[in-house]
Amino acid sequence: MKPIRSFASDNNAGVHPEILKAIATANHGHAVGYGDDPCTDAALARFREHFGDDAKVFVVFNGTAANCLGLQALTHSYDAVICAEGAHIYVDECGAPERLTGCKLIPVPAPEGKLTVGAVSHVYHGIGDQHHVQPRVISITQATEVGTVYQPDEIKALSHFAHERKIFLHMDGARISNAAVSSGLTLRQATRDLGVDVLSFGGTKNGAMGAEAIVFFDQKLEYGENPSRDFRFLRKQGMQLSSKMRFVSAQLGALLTDDLWRKNAQHSNAMARLLEQELRKIPALKIMHPVEANGVFAQIPKAAIARIQERYFFYVWNEEESVVRWMCSFDTTEDDVRAFVRFAAGIIGA
Amino acid sequence: MKPIRSFASDNNAGVHPEILKAIATANHGHAVGYGDDPCTDAALARFREHFGDDAKVFVVFNGTAANCLGLQALTHSYDAVICAEGAHIYVDECGAPERLTGCKLIPVPAPEGKLTVGAVSHVYHGIGDQHHVQPRVISITQATEVGTVYQPDEIKALSHFAHERKIFLHMDGARISNAAVSSGLTLRQATRDLGVDVLSFGGTKNGAMGAEAIVFFDQKLEYGENPSRDFRFLRKQGMQLSSKMRFVSAQLGALLTDDLWRKNAQHSNAMARLLEQELRKIPALKIMHPVEANGVFAQIPKAAIARIQERYFFYVWNEEESVVRWMCSFDTTEDDVRAFVRFAAGIIGA
Amino acid sequence: MKPIRSFASDNNAGVHPEILKAIATANHGHAVGYGDDPCTDAALARFREHFGDDAKVFVVFNGTAANCLGLQALTHSYDAVICAEGAHIYVDECGAPERLTGCKLIPVPAPEGKLTVGAVSHVYHGIGDQHHVQPRVISITQATEVGTVYQPDEIKALSHFAHERKIFLHMDGARISNAAVSSGLTLRQATRDLGVDVLSFGGTKNGAMGAEAIVFFDQKLEYGENPSRDFRFLRKQGMQLSSKMRFVSAQLGALLTDDLWRKNAQHSNAMARLLEQELRKIPALKIMHPVEANGVFAQIPKAAIARIQERYFFYVWNEEESVVRWMCSFDTTEDDVRAFVRFAAGIIGA
Amino acid sequence: MKPIRSFASDNNAGVHPEILKAIATANHGHAVGYGDDPCTDAALARFREHFGDDAKVFVVFNGTAANCLGLQALTHSYDAVICAEGAHIYVDECGAPERLTGCKLIPVPAPEGKLTVGAVSHVYHGIGDQHHVQPRVISITQATEVGTVYQPDEIKALSHFAHERKIFLHMDGARISNAAVSSGLTLRQATRDLGVDVLSFGGTKNGAMGAEAIVFFDQKLEYGENPSRDFRFLRKQGMQLSSKMRFVSAQLGALLTDDLWRKNAQHSNAMARLLEQELRKIPALKIMHPVEANGVFAQIPKAAIARIQERYFFYVWNEEESVVRWMCSFDTTEDDVRAFVRFAAGIIGA
Repeated sequence: MKPIRSFASDNNAGVHPEILKAIATANHGHAVGYGDDPCTDAALARFREHFGDDAKVFVVFNGTAANCLGLQALTHSYDAVICAEGAHIYVDECGAPERLTGCKLIPVPAPEGKLTVGAVSHVYHGIGDQHHVQPRVISITQATEVGTVYQPDEIKALSHFAHERKIFLHMDGARISNAAVSSGLTLRQATRDLGVDVLSFGGTKNGAMGAEAIVFFDQKLEYGENPSRDFRFLRKQGMQLSSKMRFVSAQLGALLTDDLWRKNAQHSNAMARLLEQELRKIPALKIMHPVEANGVFAQIPKAAIARIQERYFFYVWNEEESVVRWMCSFDTTEDDVRAFVRFAAGIIGA
Repeated sequence: MKPIRSFASDNNAGVHPEILKAIATANHGHAVGYGDDPCTDAALARFREHFGDDAKVFVVFNGTAANCLGLQALTHSYDAVICAEGAHIYVDECGAPERLTGCKLIPVPAPEGKLTVGAVSHVYHGIGDQHHVQPRVISITQATEVGTVYQPDEIKALSHFAHERKIFLHMDGARISNAAVSSGLTLRQATRDLGVDVLSFGGTKNGAMGAEAIVFFDQKLEYGENPSRDFRFLRKQGMQLSSKMRFVSAQLGALLTDDLWRKNAQHSNAMARLLEQELRKIPALKIMHPVEANGVFAQIPKAAIARIQERYFFYVWNEEESVVRWMCSFDTTEDDVRAFVRFAAGIIGA
Repeated sequence: MKPIRSFASDNNAGVHPEILKAIATANHGHAVGYGDDPCTDAALARFREHFGDDAKVFVVFNGTAANCLGLQALTHSYDAVICAEGAHIYVDECGAPERLTGCKLIPVPAPEGKLTVGAVSHVYHGIGDQHHVQPRVISITQATEVGTVYQPDEIKALSHFAHERKIFLHMDGARISNAAVSSGLTLRQATRDLGVDVLSFGGTKNGAMGAEAIVFFDQKLEYGENPSRDFRFLRKQGMQLSSKMRFVSAQLGALLTDDLWRKNAQHSNAMARLLEQELRKIPALKIMHPVEANGVFAQIPKAAIARIQERYFFYVWNEEESVVRWMCSFDTTEDDVRAFVRFAAGIIGA
Repeated sequence: MKPIRSFASDNNAGVHPEILKAIATANHGHAVGYGDDPCTDAALARFREHFGDDAKVFVVFNGTAANCLGLQALTHSYDAVICAEGAHIYVDECGAPERLTGCKLIPVPAPEGKLTVGAVSHVYHGIGDQHHVQPRVISITQATEVGTVYQPDEIKALSHFAHERKIFLHMDGARISNAAVSSGLTLRQATRDLGVDVLSFGGTKNGAMGAEAIVFFDQKLEYGENPSRDFRFLRKQGMQLSSKMRFVSAQLGALLTDDLWRKNAQHSNAMARLLEQELRKIPALKIMHPVEANGVFAQIPKAAIARIQERYFFYVWNEEESVVRWMCSFDTTEDDVRAFVRFAAGIIGA
């Protein structure tokens, strides 16, 4: 029998009860469409509480859109986006960033999933040369795709590098809550205060049904046009303007209320640490990256993969190296973790 | 005090209780993301029951995406889409169809919102001429943007015209349920059986929270590539692949179960007929189009508009001619209608 | 036997001897590629003499590119370009403007091929509404596609309308030389001084082999980004950067030297007037538009078209109304005109 | 005093006298525009003589367009193109391929500028996975960007790999003539017969003024749509349809007549070999790659670069490693080579 909760992805979890309740509460009478409704007003107000009064926030359906539209707002078609070679925007969005923006994405080797100033410098060239795309954005993922978390100084160094060159720092924050919690920072401290210019704020992987936001800090307007000023048109033309937006906004509003974002992230991070701790007891298993957010990457014997998957669905991260990914969610329980590790140990240890 | 239910748009209504329940029911345990889940399987099965076993169905977030991605699947960038000059894809999607497909949209005058073979013929030229875009799709909206409904023979004539020329008939079915009910047809009879090749199936305006689908009938594969075969890539690259898709699918599954699609549409259509009937009693008001679905278009004295809007939010359809649009929803009540007409009559009649 | 010179199009003519000579002269030794060569420097200097020291000029291969890239420099993908319904950019470029810019082109009925403030006003709406494309450019063709010429005041009225709204006036000047000559103006007087912001300067139809330029006047920089500043990237990414640019530039340099542009245009205009004058002697033929540049549009009996085409290749402009287009070139002779009219009269008069 | 002939690039050379003569010859009377002229007919016939009766050939202005439009014909927006990390399409076209096709270009490390089956295999994955771009084309440059030449078996191995997977092999043949000559093959033997599906045939670097062609062999039509069938629309919409096409076609016709393509390439290749041979006498200079076509890549002391550039303009290929590129042209003389090496030796040897 398949277990109810897997470790395949934090998006395999359902909706947090508080968020489902917020949706139900929003379902009261009529409301003007396309974002001109009280739920959206309230959610945007919450964002401003967390990120500052002048943060410009736009609600969209999913993370691909948050990333691609945010990048589109920052770039011309002849620009380039520097990102880690394992970045979600580079490998997991079916070319959506290139298609939407026209830009080249420049992949950079990134040990532990993190860009460094050194690695970025190496591909930052051809400036002003009409034959070359023009690097315009550095995009980082926080927490990274391999479950690590950029430290504040690492991000500051990148934003400093970017701003010195009058280019932008973009953050794919699909798991920004997990990262902030991991570093003991507020959402603002973990983003804007480190020099991030545009944030994809992820709700879905942290308990929402399907709700993300693009948050513009617009600190660097002097670099060109005001990226957020006409963003509503990009969102609409990008097919991401919800007609009954109140139901998307309500999810984000709930997440940002009473620290739900934090509680959910704290819990999934804690479960990942527990998972790591238990997995380390299996001798034939190797933890691949520091477990700093809600995911664990492990190298296990190739033969064990399919057998564990018979009961637990999950993704192989690197086939050649036999590395798998296990993610924890807001609803993962200690029992889930222990049962899973017991099952896996039975197979790997065999 | 503002009333709870307006006549501004069928997307100002909330979510039908059955659909909200289906969402809550779907929120059980973990499910694989991106559509590989039981809720999506079930919803797709429902679609096939309604539209035929070989219908290919893809769930997306909203109507703009259903239209634009459906058109993209049918076209090359040098093609053209023939549509009514008042078509939603032409005037209300911020250029999303052009941006996404690269195609020119060719607007055609359309009395009562309907394309005719005569009008389409007039712009169908330049075939094979490399200087001209190549008409590849005729796109109709059903029910139309002005509340009328194409009769079966009118659609058959257009699909016949299209297929004789090896081009496609696309239907923006944001209100296809209202149209089918209006004509006393099943969903299949109202679409596929009339020669429609690709349908944007609208859920949101008929009681869903935010759920639409692209339905391919693929009757005309000989015209080129199989439009649905690789559509999953277009959806993903088009930023419309939901990670927790079960919650979108569940809405459509519920709509297509126990005739909910039909009941909701029947009700909103009936309310529109009642609204028309009551409005006709106001001498200074002129009904502009046959009321065949769930909307009423009326010409009223310019001075009355703002005064009615003080209590009821709604859209002016044509400023110059002082025409307004009033839409009924699945949750509109007879009392709502009568109260509204009473209020409007008080102002217009004054 | 086919005659050597037809009246099909001014691009059916060959290269003016002076321009061919300039190409041969440019073929001396090596020169740095991509525009960093003395021929290009000299041509740009000529442009600045004609259009002002601060004009920014970019050489491209053809008129489609001049128009599309010029428009791209002025627009965002969610903007719109207002143009005449018969504009070359609307009907004869296979959707290239939409594909390149992402923008919608809004066609406006244009008697005699000319936009008017009244007609433009009619479609200038939806400003700031996220559902609507945002009109950002008014594009006019000078001389028009039907052989008429905007008078200075007509252009001033349009540029005034545009600049009051902080939008741009673009001129497709494929035949700007013919228009300037027709109005007795210098090139600058006919463009920049009337408020044109960006000009597609046409060389090919006026005796060049294949050479056009985009000329930015940048008077209205306050409207947004500097359209010409990064234009070199748009040109390269738009596949219009010539490696051996000297040979394209040399053509434009020659045209702008010793009044060659003017002489060629004066001649072809004069030939068109002669052609008109002679054609008017044929009773069954009707001149359709004022002959103000180098083309004549005539309605002739349908049966005559194919018979004249047996000897003279030309284009039917409007099949339904049996209107044909005859263009004169820099190399058209009086004898050519008289022989052609004699032949046509023999058929039409028969 | 600057010398007349540099070694900066084969596109710094001018036009071969035979080609200039062909242009002048084409300048006779009127000709129908856009390719429906005798010069174009003749050039296309020449291409068919060289490449086979069923080769489909399309003339364009430059190499960027030949590459980008050829790739566009083979791809959907969600596809990917695998290429060498130093490929011209990857690094030197300002993102034009991504912008035009929407595709991701996947860079592969390529020692000596060549892709291998092993290296391609490594990035050929994610097939059928909707999150991943779909590799659809392998693109190779022949001769390569570093002056080497793929051997016939190396290309056959790549085309075999491609065709087994029902994907395409594209060749950027900006210097295909140099490569064919280097391997002692005819143009057909060097391309089509090795399994190349689409060729960018380069004229400009081999003595033309500005003329390239896309040649479709269409051997693999079963993979999808017929890439060449509707290519004329892609060319027009891609802003690459010349109105006075005869003057572009005439260049290619001349190149393909009386072995001019071969003579020019033989000469420039021979000059590169001479250059290499002479340079090898300079002890402090290191030849970086086998000299198999018309270019020599050399590592020289950093301090020497600027001093040589005082007299000879050329490009630094790799700043960090102090590698420079010197190209020979159809018009390079032995004296040019010896004078240049003498000058360089004087500086490097100092």
